[in-house]
Amino acid sequence: MEEWIRKVRLREGFWKQQSDKNREITMRAVWDRFADTGRIGAFRCDWKEGMRHKPDVYWDSDVAKWMEAAAYLLGKEEIPWIRERLEWLIDRIEENQEPCGYFNTHFMTVEPGRRFTDQDAHELYCAGHLMEAAAAYRECCGETRFLNAMCRYADYIYEIFYVQKSAAFSVPGHEEIELALIRLYRVTGERRYLELGLYFLNTRGTVPPFDRQRQNHLPVRSQKTAQGHCVRALYLYTAMADAAWETEDEALHEACRGLFLDITWHKMYLTGGVGSTYTGECFTENYDLPNETAYAETCASIAMILFCERMLRLEHSSVYADVIERELYNGMLSGISLNGKAFFYENPLEITLAKRLEYDEGMVKLLGKVRLPITQRQEVFTCSCCPPNLNRTLASLERLLYSVEGRTVCIHQFADSELSCDGMTVRVKTDYPVSGRVEVSATGTECILIRIPGWCRHFSIDREWTMENGYACVKAEAFTVEFDMTPEYRMANENVWEDAGKAAVMRGPVVYCAEGLDQEESLHKLWLDTGAAPEEEDSEYFGLPILKTKGWVRRTGSGLYEKWERRMEETEITLIPYYGFANRGETDMRVWMNAL
Amino acid sequence: MEEWIRKVRLREGFWKQQSDKNREITMRAVWDRFADTGRIGAFRCDWKEGMRHKPDVYWDSDVAKWMEAAAYLLGKEEIPWIRERLEWLIDRIEENQEPCGYFNTHFMTVEPGRRFTDQDAHELYCAGHLMEAAAAYRECCGETRFLNAMCRYADYIYEIFYVQKSAAFSVPGHEEIELALIRLYRVTGERRYLELGLYFLNTRGTVPPFDRQRQNHLPVRSQKTAQGHCVRALYLYTAMADAAWETEDEALHEACRGLFLDITWHKMYLTGGVGSTYTGECFTENYDLPNETAYAETCASIAMILFCERMLRLEHSSVYADVIERELYNGMLSGISLNGKAFFYENPLEITLAKRLEYDEGMVKLLGKVRLPITQRQEVFTCSCCPPNLNRTLASLERLLYSVEGRTVCIHQFADSELSCDGMTVRVKTDYPVSGRVEVSATGTECILIRIPGWCRHFSIDREWTMENGYACVKAEAFTVEFDMTPEYRMANENVWEDAGKAAVMRGPVVYCAEGLDQEESLHKLWLDTGAAPEEEDSEYFGLPILKTKGWVRRTGSGLYEKWERRMEETEITLIPYYGFANRGETDMRVWMNAL
Repeated sequence: MEEWIRKVRLREGFWKQQSDKNREITMRAVWDRFADTGRIGAFRCDWKEGMRHKPDVYWDSDVAKWMEAAAYLLGKEEIPWIRERLEWLIDRIEENQEPCGYFNTHFMTVEPGRRFTDQDAHELYCAGHLMEAAAAYRECCGETRFLNAMCRYADYIYEIFYVQKSAAFSVPGHEEIELALIRLYRVTGERRYLELGLYFLNTRGTVPPFDRQRQNHLPVRSQKTAQGHCVRALYLYTAMADAAWETEDEALHEACRGLFLDITWHKMYLTGGVGSTYTGECFTENYDLPNETAYAETCASIAMILFCERMLRLEHSSVYADVIERELYNGMLSGISLNGKAFFYENPLEITLAKRLEYDEGMVKLLGKVRLPITQRQEVFTCSCCPPNLNRTLASLERLLYSVEGRTVCIHQFADSELSCDGMTVRVKTDYPVSGRVEVSATGTECILIRIPGWCRHFSIDREWTMENGYACVKAEAFTVEFDMTPEYRMANENVWEDAGKAAVMRGPVVYCAEGLDQEESLHKLWLDTGAAPEEEDSEYFGLPILKTKGWVRRTGSGLYEKWERRMEETEITLIPYYGFANRGETDMRVWMNAL
Repeated sequence: MEEWIRKVRLREGFWKQQSDKNREITMRAVWDRFADTGRIGAFRCDWKEGMRHKPDVYWDSDVAKWMEAAAYLLGKEEIPWIRERLEWLIDRIEENQEPCGYFNTHFMTVEPGRRFTDQDAHELYCAGHLMEAAAAYRECCGETRFLNAMCRYADYIYEIFYVQKSAAFSVPGHEEIELALIRLYRVTGERRYLELGLYFLNTRGTVPPFDRQRQNHLPVRSQKTAQGHCVRALYLYTAMADAAWETEDEALHEACRGLFLDITWHKMYLTGGVGSTYTGECFTENYDLPNETAYAETCASIAMILFCERMLRLEHSSVYADVIERELYNGMLSGISLNGKAFFYENPLEITLAKRLEYDEGMVKLLGKVRLPITQRQEVFTCSCCPPNLNRTLASLERLLYSVEGRTVCIHQFADSELSCDGMTVRVKTDYPVSGRVEVSATGTECILIRIPGWCRHFSIDREWTMENGYACVKAEAFTVEFDMTPEYRMANENVWEDAGKAAVMRGPVVYCAEGLDQEESLHKLWLDTGAAPEEEDSEYFGLPILKTKGWVRRTGSGLYEKWERRMEETEITLIPYYGFANRGETDMRVWMNAL
């Protein structure tokens, strides 16, 4: 898919700004923190007992995702400081890679005798991310040195896991290698990598220890519901969809479709976030979507994008592009601060500071305190997977915008951009989602399919059109689509106990939230008036309008309990785009609010 | 106060039934479980390493509360099996008590060298409960053998803590000894016990370690807000009120009044439960009253009764008797099953079974899972303080009904009963709270003060009356009061985030709740119609009417999110008395429900 990075160009608007910020600020911020914390230095593979910055098991994957992002950016333009650092890392890999092909900064220094002994040591996960980065560098820049090194590593893994079967486990504890191998196969044409990827997929659920957390409870084709650690699960489903594409495996495709439906019908937050609990960072039961203790890891939103991208290729249905859009504007984008330098690992849908009580020291030691997500973004984490995952996603947004089949071009996401390939050009002019106006002009195409988002109730197209799988098919060379961006109130399914009686506001694809610092009263006292139309107010700070809407403050007397009555005072409620929460200091936040 | 046990007699009705059940069933159930678990045998003081049933530090207090209950019951009538067991225990105490007076089944066997070295070892707490039991046996039955033994123990504690100051701590970790010593002083007239009780009170907050959890953060007269472990705190406040009464210490009295107001205005559940968290079993911040994770220990409700009983004596204000009533019918009574044999330690206001997800074994090991109270009552606990605390409370309900001052009799709680003392008789005939009709006839009195409950909006008295501190003063020899028992909807203060927009139903003093097994739909989908009048339906099972009221089920489509609308289907909602929840199997429960 990476060819698209050169065929598609972002020109202006919302995602161009995000893309620029990633290149100019976030890439350096992540690099600097990785350098500070020893992750970069770890590639020297010279750590010894007693030295600081002991390489952790997942460090290689953190750096590899930054490398993948670097490859995408270098594919678009030369950026010397990035090129230099990427090449430095590849030098270190070449220098330290073992003759057999093995490379892992943790196991080559900290636990040299324990290679491939621990299913949960993220070893194949790290390998997979390095392979993806190497594949990206080859695809985007034609560079083969890194790719060759990673092919040697893949060959070694093939030998150990597939030929000799001499590793202590056969099912990777944290998926990633599967999709990386299929990508490596695509780049190199080497079928062994596909074979090994399929082997890892097909072995899953057939050898103990059987468990849901690592998606090893059932063979993949029998997995009907999303289970266990969300990021692991979604990387698996992504690989399954990739494998279904490569092998035309209908059973695998069918399983993917079932998993997608299970997630989007039962287990996904309004923001696209998935993972309802810190405990195991996992999918839980249907409709268990607590707002305050939501895990909704940034990486899980990114993984949803990866999975949906593959499903979209398999099925050409707008539901997948709809979810990608939901993730992009909400669950993913909330993972990064507006200044591009700090990150959320978890993306809750509610913060109530009053519940974060300070106990005496002796009391916090006791068990039983509810764990709550942090309230302010951090520059780096102990396991800092999300920041470089944002790097690579924001560096390759172009891949999500279009797809081409013959002379038909599909527009999946709306960004001011152009596509040119095979003698066709498509130019999209839009300030979406500031407004819902999207102007399209094309040359050389037979037909343009443009997605009509699932959230959109009213739209117009100034040319003839027909509908096809959620896309409007327009044959004209130039046309304009207007999506009605009027803010709307949403409710959750009646089975979601956490959101009973509550409403959320969306404007186009963007979920809004209230922050405590904008209101005079605590958020739990506010009621949205769902009969009122929110008014928009431009906001340079957030990049999208903020909303002011009518609501009420609920009042009682000063006693603790009294006779029930509904005593409401009118008030104005300010709502901001959810992705922008927690940028103005620590304060309360709610997506789902009381509503009448 | 214990003289009242013989002056007041329960005749019929709600509390007579509870009292009988306690005597006939619960006393034996608690004894049997205490025998099974080794608590009774521990009084032989012959435990040695390798034997089972190693005496735990709080076991003496568990048994002592049963002994106190036994004393009350024997004061009312001879019950051979109880007398025999009580005497057997006293024999063991006399037999094993050390010459110096010390007695503790744990420290005399398990940790013989560690006497009075650990502030948190419940040693003085156990001593206090034994002293209370001994005082009760003397007061109710005139028996002095147990009292004499416990006076020797108190003398020893006086010597160690007050004269020699040779113990490793000077502030008891779990309060109880303070109020027990004042009680011992009242029974014996021995001022040293009062002196020692005051010493313990006055030392608090003056010597490190200073901490809120044990109420050692400030000197008692400076404690303005309820802090730390609820039961400990309330036993302390009870002792403070006792001391204020004995010494006419205004500053102490003032502190008690402030603490009472802090609790009842900010920190008490509708049921009277206190303690918002399992973590430290403690008071938290104002308005932090989560329903599902409520601690609301049965013992804390009983301790609230003890504290309010003392405050009522100090101030003659109905607010204290109101809280006693709230505790009796709700937070205390929910602690015991309808069959009298099983107990709740924690009394939550909500159970949602769907949230109690079963994870794979590997996942529950991870930190971060929210701890939730158990959903079914148990026969005994590892720390089984609540069951015998119910025993002693239910065995001495008579003390809460009346008080006498000169020729004026106050009726604090309404139960079919009679009082006779000092040539006066008062006969109360009532089936309260089945109905609100209370018939009073008196001889020899000048005036009857009858409490008009705070929950009561309409009442009538068929004679002339005036109001005085929340009591109607009636000079007639016979009169009838009718309290309007129409069920009413209640709301919580606007600052209680957990109950925002929710209503609860009370009928008279009794809080109601919905249980899942009575409804066709999950409780979170139900809305109470606060405009509808609940209909009453007699229920022998619960002892009070159940309520059927109009409400709605909220409906959505089958998708996860959709455009907001209020789609309500009419339904009937069944409500049962809160104290009766969890008697018909494991099911969901809610006190606070969505409401319109």
